[in-house]
Amino acid sequence: VALNTNPAGLLDRLFTTDAMRDVFCDRRYVQSMLDFELGLARALVRTGIAPSSALPAIESSCDTSLFDFETLSVEAASAGNLAIPLVKQLTALVGKADPQAMRFVHWGATSQDVIDTGLVLQLRDAFDIFDADLVAMAAALAKLAREHRSTLLPGRTFLQHAAPVTFGFKVAGWLTAIQRHRERLRQTRARTLVLQFGGAVGTLAAFGEKGSAVAEALASELKLTRSDLSWHTHRDSFAEVATMLGLLTGTLGKIARDLSLLTQTEVGEVLEPAGSGRGGSSTMPHKRNPVGAAVALAAATRVPALVATMLSAMVQEHERGLGGWHAEWQTLPEICLLCSGALSHLTLVVASPEIFTEKMRADLELTRGLILSEAVSMALAAHIGKHAAHEIMERASRRTIESGAQLGEVLLADPEVARHISSDEIRRLLDPANYIGRALEDVDRVLEKYSGNP
Amino acid sequence: VALNTNPAGLLDRLFTTDAMRDVFCDRRYVQSMLDFELGLARALVRTGIAPSSALPAIESSCDTSLFDFETLSVEAASAGNLAIPLVKQLTALVGKADPQAMRFVHWGATSQDVIDTGLVLQLRDAFDIFDADLVAMAAALAKLAREHRSTLLPGRTFLQHAAPVTFGFKVAGWLTAIQRHRERLRQTRARTLVLQFGGAVGTLAAFGEKGSAVAEALASELKLTRSDLSWHTHRDSFAEVATMLGLLTGTLGKIARDLSLLTQTEVGEVLEPAGSGRGGSSTMPHKRNPVGAAVALAAATRVPALVATMLSAMVQEHERGLGGWHAEWQTLPEICLLCSGALSHLTLVVASPEIFTEKMRADLELTRGLILSEAVSMALAAHIGKHAAHEIMERASRRTIESGAQLGEVLLADPEVARHISSDEIRRLLDPANYIGRALEDVDRVLEKYSGNP
Amino acid sequence: VALNTNPAGLLDRLFTTDAMRDVFCDRRYVQSMLDFELGLARALVRTGIAPSSALPAIESSCDTSLFDFETLSVEAASAGNLAIPLVKQLTALVGKADPQAMRFVHWGATSQDVIDTGLVLQLRDAFDIFDADLVAMAAALAKLAREHRSTLLPGRTFLQHAAPVTFGFKVAGWLTAIQRHRERLRQTRARTLVLQFGGAVGTLAAFGEKGSAVAEALASELKLTRSDLSWHTHRDSFAEVATMLGLLTGTLGKIARDLSLLTQTEVGEVLEPAGSGRGGSSTMPHKRNPVGAAVALAAATRVPALVATMLSAMVQEHERGLGGWHAEWQTLPEICLLCSGALSHLTLVVASPEIFTEKMRADLELTRGLILSEAVSMALAAHIGKHAAHEIMERASRRTIESGAQLGEVLLADPEVARHISSDEIRRLLDPANYIGRALEDVDRVLEKYSGNP
Amino acid sequence: VALNTNPAGLLDRLFTTDAMRDVFCDRRYVQSMLDFELGLARALVRTGIAPSSALPAIESSCDTSLFDFETLSVEAASAGNLAIPLVKQLTALVGKADPQAMRFVHWGATSQDVIDTGLVLQLRDAFDIFDADLVAMAAALAKLAREHRSTLLPGRTFLQHAAPVTFGFKVAGWLTAIQRHRERLRQTRARTLVLQFGGAVGTLAAFGEKGSAVAEALASELKLTRSDLSWHTHRDSFAEVATMLGLLTGTLGKIARDLSLLTQTEVGEVLEPAGSGRGGSSTMPHKRNPVGAAVALAAATRVPALVATMLSAMVQEHERGLGGWHAEWQTLPEICLLCSGALSHLTLVVASPEIFTEKMRADLELTRGLILSEAVSMALAAHIGKHAAHEIMERASRRTIESGAQLGEVLLADPEVARHISSDEIRRLLDPANYIGRALEDVDRVLEKYSGNP
Repeated sequence: VALNTNPAGLLDRLFTTDAMRDVFCDRRYVQSMLDFELGLARALVRTGIAPSSALPAIESSCDTSLFDFETLSVEAASAGNLAIPLVKQLTALVGKADPQAMRFVHWGATSQDVIDTGLVLQLRDAFDIFDADLVAMAAALAKLAREHRSTLLPGRTFLQHAAPVTFGFKVAGWLTAIQRHRERLRQTRARTLVLQFGGAVGTLAAFGEKGSAVAEALASELKLTRSDLSWHTHRDSFAEVATMLGLLTGTLGKIARDLSLLTQTEVGEVLEPAGSGRGGSSTMPHKRNPVGAAVALAAATRVPALVATMLSAMVQEHERGLGGWHAEWQTLPEICLLCSGALSHLTLVVASPEIFTEKMRADLELTRGLILSEAVSMALAAHIGKHAAHEIMERASRRTIESGAQLGEVLLADPEVARHISSDEIRRLLDPANYIGRALEDVDRVLEKYSGNP
Repeated sequence: VALNTNPAGLLDRLFTTDAMRDVFCDRRYVQSMLDFELGLARALVRTGIAPSSALPAIESSCDTSLFDFETLSVEAASAGNLAIPLVKQLTALVGKADPQAMRFVHWGATSQDVIDTGLVLQLRDAFDIFDADLVAMAAALAKLAREHRSTLLPGRTFLQHAAPVTFGFKVAGWLTAIQRHRERLRQTRARTLVLQFGGAVGTLAAFGEKGSAVAEALASELKLTRSDLSWHTHRDSFAEVATMLGLLTGTLGKIARDLSLLTQTEVGEVLEPAGSGRGGSSTMPHKRNPVGAAVALAAATRVPALVATMLSAMVQEHERGLGGWHAEWQTLPEICLLCSGALSHLTLVVASPEIFTEKMRADLELTRGLILSEAVSMALAAHIGKHAAHEIMERASRRTIESGAQLGEVLLADPEVARHISSDEIRRLLDPANYIGRALEDVDRVLEKYSGNP
Repeated sequence: VALNTNPAGLLDRLFTTDAMRDVFCDRRYVQSMLDFELGLARALVRTGIAPSSALPAIESSCDTSLFDFETLSVEAASAGNLAIPLVKQLTALVGKADPQAMRFVHWGATSQDVIDTGLVLQLRDAFDIFDADLVAMAAALAKLAREHRSTLLPGRTFLQHAAPVTFGFKVAGWLTAIQRHRERLRQTRARTLVLQFGGAVGTLAAFGEKGSAVAEALASELKLTRSDLSWHTHRDSFAEVATMLGLLTGTLGKIARDLSLLTQTEVGEVLEPAGSGRGGSSTMPHKRNPVGAAVALAAATRVPALVATMLSAMVQEHERGLGGWHAEWQTLPEICLLCSGALSHLTLVVASPEIFTEKMRADLELTRGLILSEAVSMALAAHIGKHAAHEIMERASRRTIESGAQLGEVLLADPEVARHISSDEIRRLLDPANYIGRALEDVDRVLEKYSGNP
Repeated sequence: VALNTNPAGLLDRLFTTDAMRDVFCDRRYVQSMLDFELGLARALVRTGIAPSSALPAIESSCDTSLFDFETLSVEAASAGNLAIPLVKQLTALVGKADPQAMRFVHWGATSQDVIDTGLVLQLRDAFDIFDADLVAMAAALAKLAREHRSTLLPGRTFLQHAAPVTFGFKVAGWLTAIQRHRERLRQTRARTLVLQFGGAVGTLAAFGEKGSAVAEALASELKLTRSDLSWHTHRDSFAEVATMLGLLTGTLGKIARDLSLLTQTEVGEVLEPAGSGRGGSSTMPHKRNPVGAAVALAAATRVPALVATMLSAMVQEHERGLGGWHAEWQTLPEICLLCSGALSHLTLVVASPEIFTEKMRADLELTRGLILSEAVSMALAAHIGKHAAHEIMERASRRTIESGAQLGEVLLADPEVARHISSDEIRRLLDPANYIGRALEDVDRVLEKYSGNP
């Protein structure tokens, strides 16, 4: 089963997970198609088209270990898809076991029925993995948010210190996004796990009157939903899987960007968990590189374009697309693989990061109080209006920056400020813990909601 | 309000709809932000932060006709966003009307609260338009599917004749996809119409204890859902709007591809509706170009990449994104505009196409019976097995192609065929109407389901 | 060397070429990096940093067959790139052979030097393949254009018959585009085959004064150009390779679209070459599917997005990118592989297509003369002006369409036409061979130019 | 001329330049097409097809101020392109001035000739702007590199301090990339400034024998190169413009990313130039946001996808594309606009940034010497081999991190180190200025090369 054809396959362990590779490896690819063929054979028996005596030979032949993968690969290149050589080998295997059974192989189906349904079956397994991994990610985030509910650090807008937040608040934001993705996954799953079965042009004409009965039986065999109509050239459900994972990967990229910025040498508020050989440098012994973030950011760079491919590929002709269909075959699995790798790497990071709360606290002092200028400004505004307050604060900010003094000192020295705010009040205003608004309340609300939907 | 800055703005009537242009024009862009500011002022009054006396001045100032758009544009270029100069002008207007009210303008909010919520309000209007337009499209498709339920034409796979279908069956396929998009629109809408309101870093710190109350009141003023947490750098809901419309545009592209192929001179089974000046050629008086299909195909070429942009832009830093946020501002509206144009153009086409049923029927004869080779093959297979049947039919197909004869004649002349199938049976098998499987049943099911959800 | 990790690796023979797979397989990936390390060792010797006695151990160790690929893959996943475990294994191998030599392994280089230069070496081989394949494609097109220089068929605009062209003219158009891509390949090649060598942050600091000398020697060993500066985070040359191949793939998609449209059952002017098992259908014995076009169209659907990934990935941080660099590793090879597959498949098609010149000729009659309406219109215009001529022709076109008559008959029956144009002249105007302008001249010019640059 | 149809047109001054907006405004769009029509008329006269008496009426009519843009817009929406209503209005204008001249308007040309050549003429102006702006950018970078040739700051890999570089070295890296883009611009320009002229299907059939002569004359009128063949559906030159600008935008994004990271509050090594209202915050008086970087990063997020659109759109059918051609019309101008905005904003920044050399120097101390661990490691390696040296340094790094001491102290206290390196040598090794390799040499080489090609 081993054709090593992937560019840089050596990197797959870096970029994806073993579990997802297993879902989309060649063996499983073929087995999913065989699952379709076996389900079809059983459906033919259930609907009286084939005798039950035909089943044993088909059942025993639907086993990937019997197939010649090299030949499959070679013949797919001229046939234009994998189903044709697969059915050929399957037919031969069945024929050897029971010549009478041979005729019922692939009966009435078309290549696209096999290939599409096979992919649906693989996606079902992929969804299970994503679901479990999202649960794990959410749990890790919830734990982290709870632990650092009140850990103060600078809130940063446009990469500049703006006003204080807590690390738990930051993480709770990540968690809410992950929870929304879990909802999307459920909705997309329901629209995706649908049987593809239409025969040559979607009408199941080869079955005469029995088309619907066979479709019903086959859907039941494979535990898939029946569609109202074959969807050979309506690819919205496959493309939706891509978009749903694209959205998830975007969130993973956002979390990774945050984490990577927090690990910068100058910031040093977070480090990715250490591990033997993890993120080291061959020449610089002091370095610990954020490998998890790198993987997630790489995925967030690659997946959007792959989603665009799936959307572009939707423009498929008549009853079977030329090129558009083919463009999906490696693209959708690739999206699953990359998203899975990013999710897994990042879960590892958020499950046990090193958090440097003292550095967070120290960074709040970096601007010598300016990070609380809005707090003071709002307090002044209550007395003298927003405009006048803003003017005073601009002046005080400038002085603070130029003099290297603390904003508190500058304010205390300003008679206009003193007229309205006491020195105690100034000290209170310049304590970051007093200017985090509803941050703790938000964390609690998110965690409470999460605890009902873990 | 007129800055003509769009590349090829002269083409906007071609590529989009007046209704959607109205939603995303500069005036409405500004008005939506003013709606936020007005809603905020009312929320401040409801929560006792501002006196009700402050309202009249703010209410009368939240009127786009009072704003200097040229200055907005110039100042946005250095401020880095539109909210800053907008709030500046608004504050000045309010101050002129009532200096006491001025201080409550934009109180405690941040630029991103205004800009994001403004876009949410625009999207709400856009969703209404899409919803109505999808209803119209679905109705036109249902009508067309009903009328041509039994109109036979060739089913084509990989652009080759494969087996017969009916035109109604084809259209029913389009309809099922459109119906799925209506469901997606509903789900996305629910996740999107959410207030953005967090102040500088998302904590509503400027409101002290009152943050949640103000948020509640503001959400109620604007008839939006409250979020658990401000989502300044969690862009999954905006990106999801893009993906949902990307999926819809893909389906529109697929329908347009089908239609355009059917209008080819050699096929001529469908023509886009004629209209004064529609699709004409300056030099070739006989031409009628498929303009509707061109617009939808252009959208299906452009939108996937714009969706990728929205996904790439999700990687936003900390509490406010640098560049990623900015990348959304023109991209999401552009997706709405292009998708709307494609939907509208294509609805026009499917609402009154010229259908040439005789040409469809004639095209079924093009292969001199070969389009029914599967039908004959399956019938033979019932007697002699699939493999032997396939061999006979391959031979017969070759003879038909080489001789220019009808497949029927070739089959009648073949003693092996005659041994198993009577000439009457052959004639029956070669009637396209007898080999459309459950096509009519499918159309009926789709139409019945549609009639419950028009 | 066999890790089968590729999604749908069974399809690689369909989508790419053996030659290109060989360039980007894991073994070659590793070997290219070893070529760098060996080149570096030799450069160290040439510049007197390492003794020549160190060379034999390094030379004998730079052999992929000695490496444990499984361990490389596992360790790359935690190290974050392949160079670190590779250098580790290489160092151990060298150490076993000659402990004194061990210290000179990877001396002064950084992971990115190895990885980037390794990819440059792979790209050099890829360029050679593309160059040869473009030569083959151009030769096939030139032959085809020459053979069908004068073969008439309908020119089609917006999929409608417009005016006659020759098949050779059409093919000459394809050829000109291919020739432009050869020029682009040459220019891009020159900018790409550049050594990456900078050490930890690009300054070659580990070499003290000898940095430039080592770089010079290494470039000479590897037969690469030296860059003015290390380009660790300036990725324009790699991204340019992507764009250059993206442009080529676009042209291949265009040719494939044309071919696929010409193979439609209703058109049938061209068929892809037949071959055992090529493009067959499991159930429809009469079908011959355009597999070559499918592969090229799939590539033209996938590659643009991959190019976008390479462009997005250019935004790399400081002296080494986090995520952006990683996003390139599998993407650029994938572009090479897909483009190579499309080029190869399509060359096969254009080298020996079945051309149905009689069907081309017959299709010219499909519009009963209307395809020459411009010819008549221009002739009339010379007498009565464009506007009046256009009006007459619109009327005549309408009559032709409605009556089912020939345009020639309609014109002959029109007294206004007769006043200006004789019946002989009408016949002459309605001969497609008389209305192909400079088509033959164009073909000849293109072929002549080609013959100087085959 | 004012149709305000752009989504968020108010933001155009932020995202693009006035100069580029002027090139792609509607008026210029129309004027470029009129330039084609006028050039054609002159070519008709030069080749004896039209009398010179026809020229005055055409010349005076080719003036945008005479055109009804509202009608152009409305009619383009049903005609499917702008050329048809434009030619209609032009013909009427000419007819009013001189009925005899009217017949020569647009003689023998097709809509695509006008539209494509019009865009080529606009691109010529765009290239001039890009060329001048790249010169300005390169000059600013050269000046900056020269000034800060020796200004030390930390080199950062994966966002971690790695080893020292100079700011001039960093800027010289940016400069080399910009210089490569200038070369690419020249090469692309030569392939792009080509006349499109083929008539209905590219054969210039309407001109009979005179096609080539007219094409020659028209190319000379418009100062464009003639192509070997009309390139109606060979879009590689337009797509190449997109890719070339995509590469440039990628570099601008890279520079902007670097700058934005350097402006972070914790880093503070660079600030964007201040300016009235530039990058301020409505509520936080102390902030100065990196607006230039935001614009460039937004462009670097958006342009890659637009490039993908241009590549996807290359798959155009037969002699005129349906949808693909249409997809280009707004996309290529949008790329020019966004790239121009990014280039201009960033040039402003690099022309007069605030550089905080003391903070750069201070940041070198942040790791208490660890940023020079490679320097020490290499020095030790010369005595005891790389492996043993690496082990010692790992231990010393760990101690430094855990103890909070200086690496120098730790090393001095280590007897194994002392055995091989003197304390003076340690001090020398830990001076960043002694470990920048060939950085200064590189800067000088780049500047010298630049000075020959400014």
